[in-house]
Amino acid sequence: MASYTIQDINHVLKGELIGNTTQKIDGPEELQKAKSNHISFIGSTKYVKYWTDSKACAAIVNDNITVEAFDNRAIIKVKNADLAMAKVLELFNQSPPIFETDIHPTAVIHKTAIIGKGCKIGAHCYIGKNVELGDDVILYPNVCVFDETTIGNHTTVWSGTVIRERCIIGSHCIFHVNVSIGADGFGYRPSDDGRGLVKIPQIGNVIIGHSVEIGANSCVDRAKFSSTIIGDGCKIDNLVQIAHNSVMGRYCIMAGHSGLAGSVTLGDGVIIGGSASIKDHTTIHSGATVGAGSGVMNDVKAGETVLGYPAQDARDMLKQWVMMRKLAKQ
Amino acid sequence: MASYTIQDINHVLKGELIGNTTQKIDGPEELQKAKSNHISFIGSTKYVKYWTDSKACAAIVNDNITVEAFDNRAIIKVKNADLAMAKVLELFNQSPPIFETDIHPTAVIHKTAIIGKGCKIGAHCYIGKNVELGDDVILYPNVCVFDETTIGNHTTVWSGTVIRERCIIGSHCIFHVNVSIGADGFGYRPSDDGRGLVKIPQIGNVIIGHSVEIGANSCVDRAKFSSTIIGDGCKIDNLVQIAHNSVMGRYCIMAGHSGLAGSVTLGDGVIIGGSASIKDHTTIHSGATVGAGSGVMNDVKAGETVLGYPAQDARDMLKQWVMMRKLAKQ
Amino acid sequence: MASYTIQDINHVLKGELIGNTTQKIDGPEELQKAKSNHISFIGSTKYVKYWTDSKACAAIVNDNITVEAFDNRAIIKVKNADLAMAKVLELFNQSPPIFETDIHPTAVIHKTAIIGKGCKIGAHCYIGKNVELGDDVILYPNVCVFDETTIGNHTTVWSGTVIRERCIIGSHCIFHVNVSIGADGFGYRPSDDGRGLVKIPQIGNVIIGHSVEIGANSCVDRAKFSSTIIGDGCKIDNLVQIAHNSVMGRYCIMAGHSGLAGSVTLGDGVIIGGSASIKDHTTIHSGATVGAGSGVMNDVKAGETVLGYPAQDARDMLKQWVMMRKLAKQ
Repeated sequence: MASYTIQDINHVLKGELIGNTTQKIDGPEELQKAKSNHISFIGSTKYVKYWTDSKACAAIVNDNITVEAFDNRAIIKVKNADLAMAKVLELFNQSPPIFETDIHPTAVIHKTAIIGKGCKIGAHCYIGKNVELGDDVILYPNVCVFDETTIGNHTTVWSGTVIRERCIIGSHCIFHVNVSIGADGFGYRPSDDGRGLVKIPQIGNVIIGHSVEIGANSCVDRAKFSSTIIGDGCKIDNLVQIAHNSVMGRYCIMAGHSGLAGSVTLGDGVIIGGSASIKDHTTIHSGATVGAGSGVMNDVKAGETVLGYPAQDARDMLKQWVMMRKLAKQ
Repeated sequence: MASYTIQDINHVLKGELIGNTTQKIDGPEELQKAKSNHISFIGSTKYVKYWTDSKACAAIVNDNITVEAFDNRAIIKVKNADLAMAKVLELFNQSPPIFETDIHPTAVIHKTAIIGKGCKIGAHCYIGKNVELGDDVILYPNVCVFDETTIGNHTTVWSGTVIRERCIIGSHCIFHVNVSIGADGFGYRPSDDGRGLVKIPQIGNVIIGHSVEIGANSCVDRAKFSSTIIGDGCKIDNLVQIAHNSVMGRYCIMAGHSGLAGSVTLGDGVIIGGSASIKDHTTIHSGATVGAGSGVMNDVKAGETVLGYPAQDARDMLKQWVMMRKLAKQ
Repeated sequence: MASYTIQDINHVLKGELIGNTTQKIDGPEELQKAKSNHISFIGSTKYVKYWTDSKACAAIVNDNITVEAFDNRAIIKVKNADLAMAKVLELFNQSPPIFETDIHPTAVIHKTAIIGKGCKIGAHCYIGKNVELGDDVILYPNVCVFDETTIGNHTTVWSGTVIRERCIIGSHCIFHVNVSIGADGFGYRPSDDGRGLVKIPQIGNVIIGHSVEIGANSCVDRAKFSSTIIGDGCKIDNLVQIAHNSVMGRYCIMAGHSGLAGSVTLGDGVIIGGSASIKDHTTIHSGATVGAGSGVMNDVKAGETVLGYPAQDARDMLKQWVMMRKLAKQ
């Protein structure tokens, strides 16, 4: 594990070093759990009280917060402690799990698959016919990639994830564990005898851009026809559902347990809060935000923030919530 | 990939062909993305404006919508464009991923398991003691089926799905990727010393009828005792939770992120909207509909539509929502 | 399968045996499905009507419910039929799926891993560098455990579950199928050019106490730094999301589809209802209860019960719901 001096760290952060510490710093830790070889963070005044008794040898502090350095315990003042924290985490980022061999002998790889340079393919992976992996793709053990799917350079796929046939995945993506890409969309028609339902074939695929991250146990269904599309730079949390024929622009964020019903369109930079759901065939325009827990039943304008179930303009919803509390107390 | 003439397609649809195209048609595509070898759909007047500039050589159009044929670009008028689309998708449905060998040598199959004719078992599957697979069962790579479970003819199980011991699965089912069937129900009792909880054994199983489809990353827990039951023809979307001892009738639909708490009973033909949750020990009678996002805390009568959190008659709920908006604006 | 006399069963329950049956009892079943070799339960008066026509040879009945014994059909009266049922289920609990060999030859286990006595490791498992398994750990087929993770004695991990690197798992835990432990937390910062998002490294881990049960397809993310912590005896249902840096005390319960956003703190004995979500950086103090479907946006006091979206004191919320129904009917 890496170890740094306080000077090394401030060299990266370019903050104001107050006091000094001769401790070697082995990693970040919360103020109350820290040992003397840890650096910590004070991004809000509510953490100030823990500094005096903390064993941390250093703290990174927002420059609008007053904290003193102590004997052999230093302060680095920065404009944005959150951003500084991210940079410190990059310093201490540990190497990922090792691969003893680039392509594990238990992986089953179809002879027609094209595997780029520097790929690592773990134990018990399955790679189907005509799959194409770019360079430096990492598949951890127990990943399945089905026929004709292509994956771009430097994409990492964690164990248990399944990518079905004919999907197109960009470069520098990360798919976490047990993700499901390209399963059939949910579509049925009444059977001809009127008793029950007949499956509508889902003959489309999934197209995922570059630098997309998809959280554990999330699902992106293939399109009925054409494609379900996730734009460059989208970040999707755990247990998220993206139904068939939805189209996401670039740099959208979807938090845990949120979902897009079929044929939803998101513009660029849309933020969907945790557990929020979007009705099918709805459009959320660029820069809009959907609050946590919302149920969106209508289109949302660019830049608008909606909230509630059913979702409406967030300020209106907050007013409703206040009004209801007042009325119930009368 | 298959290719058809416009006459071939109208032979299936039996609609009214207006104009003609000599193009070979290689698949369906949305109007705006289509190339000249694509057929598209106009099921609503809002898509009419895209027809003129589309490159699609043909469109299937609802017969109440007015659209003109152009030079070498044909129209097929039909009573129901959605149904016609389903039939066209069946024409163009592509073959599923290939199996090079029927039973992959890396699959681990207990010697007592009975494997029907025409089964395909992918790489790294695990099949336990006394499992019985009917004929033409397909297990894609990395599926686990545990001891004493039986699976009917023509059922397909996608990668990452796990079916635990002593479950009974019907024929013509489809389980998508990373589905969990037969995990323990969630049941505890206070420990005898009053500190903490003791697990209640979950000794029942799961019984799934015929033609049931279960979406990616969905869960059906085994019963505490007796069985969790899913009736014939039920269609279950992604990330759905079906807790122990729930019983679903035939032809029910559960959309993404919905859930049944323990011992819920659904009649036949019940529709549960996305992200809706049903309280434990509740009955939703046949033909009832639960709107998206609802939280159902009481029984629902046959044919009733409920909505909201807490759910009530949908018309009443809609009135409440309107009323609240009005009050907040006063 | 085990078989008992009514006397055997009452020896365990120590209730009052009324009447007798000479039937061998092979298991528990619901009154309406039972055959003559089954024992059933009557824990509420609503089930009394099924007793006369049931084929069950015996029933365990709450002592405040009046039910008669019949010819060769016995009653055991107990103070708490639910608790008695749990004890009967323990009697009839069946053996779990078999392992033909303790460590399956297809498992890929790094040479530095330490495997305790009596461990069972199924087909196609993957165990990384320096993993340590205590004694009697059971990994069913297709489990992945990554580098440096430790797992305590008698913990059971079901198929499809992935535990990432450097996590610490206690003893006597049960992780059901397709669980994701230790995937990256969901954290980004704006990129330096203001266009898009940069991943914040998630260098922490997950620490799980003893006797923790985690349901199918649930996720526990690793911490940004420091640890995501689940205390001893917590019971977590299916499809639950526990985001990075959340800390749960002991004996907490989280029902299906519930979720903790980042850095949530739960005290001891907190109960989170199904589909409830807790906002990031919120504290739910010991003994508090969050009702099903709630969206909690503020701290909750010890012992308080909150409900609704947004969540508030449950009695207040119930008043609001009543008030809204009344107003809408005016």
